Amino acid sequence: MPSISEKGKHMPPSPIRKLVPYADKAKAEGKKIYHLNIGQPDIESPKVMLDAIRNIDLKVIEYSHSAGIESYRRKLISYYKKYNININFEDILITTGGSEAIEIAMMTCLNEGDEIIIPEPFYANYNGFSTQAGVTVVPVFSSIRNGFALPPHDVFEKVITPRTKAIMICNPSNPTGHLYSKEELQSLRDLALKHDLYLFADEVYREFCYDNNSYFSIMHLEGLDENIILLDSISKRYSACGARIGAMISKNKKVMSTAMKFAQARLSPPTFGQIAAEAAIDTPQEYFDNVKAEYVARRNFVIEQLNSMPGVFCAKPSGAFYCMAELPIDDSDTFCQWLLEKFSYKGQTVMLAPATGFYSHAELGKKEVRIAYVLNLDDLKNAMICLNEALKVYPGRVENISNNTIVMQ
Amino acid sequence: MPSISEKGKHMPPSPIRKLVPYADKAKAEGKKIYHLNIGQPDIESPKVMLDAIRNIDLKVIEYSHSAGIESYRRKLISYYKKYNININFEDILITTGGSEAIEIAMMTCLNEGDEIIIPEPFYANYNGFSTQAGVTVVPVFSSIRNGFALPPHDVFEKVITPRTKAIMICNPSNPTGHLYSKEELQSLRDLALKHDLYLFADEVYREFCYDNNSYFSIMHLEGLDENIILLDSISKRYSACGARIGAMISKNKKVMSTAMKFAQARLSPPTFGQIAAEAAIDTPQEYFDNVKAEYVARRNFVIEQLNSMPGVFCAKPSGAFYCMAELPIDDSDTFCQWLLEKFSYKGQTVMLAPATGFYSHAELGKKEVRIAYVLNLDDLKNAMICLNEALKVYPGRVENISNNTIVMQ
Repeated sequence: MPSISEKGKHMPPSPIRKLVPYADKAKAEGKKIYHLNIGQPDIESPKVMLDAIRNIDLKVIEYSHSAGIESYRRKLISYYKKYNININFEDILITTGGSEAIEIAMMTCLNEGDEIIIPEPFYANYNGFSTQAGVTVVPVFSSIRNGFALPPHDVFEKVITPRTKAIMICNPSNPTGHLYSKEELQSLRDLALKHDLYLFADEVYREFCYDNNSYFSIMHLEGLDENIILLDSISKRYSACGARIGAMISKNKKVMSTAMKFAQARLSPPTFGQIAAEAAIDTPQEYFDNVKAEYVARRNFVIEQLNSMPGVFCAKPSGAFYCMAELPIDDSDTFCQWLLEKFSYKGQTVMLAPATGFYSHAELGKKEVRIAYVLNLDDLKNAMICLNEALKVYPGRVENISNNTIVMQ
Repeated sequence: MPSISEKGKHMPPSPIRKLVPYADKAKAEGKKIYHLNIGQPDIESPKVMLDAIRNIDLKVIEYSHSAGIESYRRKLISYYKKYNININFEDILITTGGSEAIEIAMMTCLNEGDEIIIPEPFYANYNGFSTQAGVTVVPVFSSIRNGFALPPHDVFEKVITPRTKAIMICNPSNPTGHLYSKEELQSLRDLALKHDLYLFADEVYREFCYDNNSYFSIMHLEGLDENIILLDSISKRYSACGARIGAMISKNKKVMSTAMKFAQARLSPPTFGQIAAEAAIDTPQEYFDNVKAEYVARRNFVIEQLNSMPGVFCAKPSGAFYCMAELPIDDSDTFCQWLLEKFSYKGQTVMLAPATGFYSHAELGKKEVRIAYVLNLDDLKNAMICLNEALKVYPGRVENISNNTIVMQ
């Protein structure tokens, strides 16, 4: 029997999806599970988008251009212009979800053994894409205690080596909900220019910025056109995760022509998804206003509930639809599995994502979980009741005293 | 300005798509182009498939399971059973086109620097996927003069090294149209068992086997379950290239659980495409009978026409919808570009794929082109007239005399 690859061995399983078998078993046993573990919103996709699919008049489901349907790429320019992002049609490569945008960007820009600096906690799949590309993730620690703000300049300087080739952020951030300020981004620009680094930004949550905080994109930075790679997706924007449509955007011509070679090898992004995505650009502003109001209500509810539970701490996020919560527990992996396997309250339980998967140093996430507030308020209410009850009886409960901990049993 | 990756530099541009800018220019000048350069059929997709899309009743375009929608995977079992391929639901990973099946299979099974033996000429994008995975393609030569039959056993033995990890075929073959016999596949089985190699087969053209030749799949080989990886796609089967739905299939549990980690990183294959693909399994047999009859007529016409042109040789393919033709030309890249840039006959020209991109040793393809007979008979007729006229006036025409050549100018 031939062996599997080293890359395959080192590829991390998804921390968000690895608990799925336990959830399946719990459901089979009749338990109701509230899924706060995955960024799959319950929000309806825009009507214009679904109508475009229902009215499709294709006879042959053809390949599109490898860079994406031209009319869609051209129409996207107007979408970005609303955010004061000025790009040309040639700067856009349509990808199969944001996932492929990251894969292609990494293969295009980084060599095996190169290092990419990412503030942790970060979206767990960045680990997977880095493993695929043979790239080493160098984390810089951001703390729940100051709302996961960007670590200061000197923290980056300390970890920059001759192998450092890029810095990557997610803005607004999955998993923390942190919205990076203009000053934080300018600090990254200075680093990128000084050390000649690529600056990758995954901005798939730009529609979800709250409390009148303004969104500042890496595309707003000046004098950095050759270094900036914007990674995007329509998955969250239109609650259309299954369309698998994203984009890689850069004004660096060499990067885009190289990325195009990878894009040609896989032929084209999905045609149906692109048709839906093109139509979605006409989504009325009212849709986004309603969605944002809904998420603000959910966030406010969840944050208030969490912070009222003894021993729980949660910073108030300014964007995306996630929060990280510090819980009075021994181990978030054990706890999340226990919630599915051993716990129920009135026949119900809650599924969370252990934060260990969002840190390069897994131990930093042992007391934290990521909560995606992607369910309606009624469901969130029940989910919070479950979590509160669970924390009362969890055998691995630990009391936090400042930075020290006492195991209760 | 940061540099691009070594992989990016070495990534081959698509030989099938690299002439596109010349074609765009020719079209802008008003030339009619017959596209025989790409496997994008003009055949209509099945009605059941398009109806499923038009009748979609989703409210939220959700992610699917990372391995694909479960009902689709279960239904696929019946599809394969019709071909006497007996697999379980767990043996199937739904991918974003056949392209992603190849990418994931390579990353799962092969290390950087490992070697994969592929009979040449082969589908050009195998080069791209190998470059992405850091894998070295070791070609074994198959000749147009004996219909691109599998090279004999000892040719493989000569190139097998300690780094050899897999053999890959495309059956029926793109670009040659060769349909591998049971004996050829058994010969590959012996090699795979003797040297403990993976055997990859891209069988996306199984619906296109002609002249009562029977299709023999690698899945029909016995005693090789741990070594076999089937790479599949619905793109050609249902003329649905843009749906981007494929599959990676293996009974090797370790391979599939490792592949699943790569699949989880990219979240899920496209939802719309999967819905269409699931519906397509109910396509009536009449559809395939009509499509096959159409392709047989096209093939017969094209082969007859080609072989009637002075200096042209073309073997009669038994499968897929391609043929390789040897032309009396100096250089197929130059010729194909000239067809677009310099030539027209009654305002028309033809676009072909230079065979250089299908050989690891590009010089072997300098006198050959790949022709995809994916247009209707009227268009094919005009395309063949164009080619015939072009060969009469092409400045780089060369007369073939046995294996020697005389340049005419």
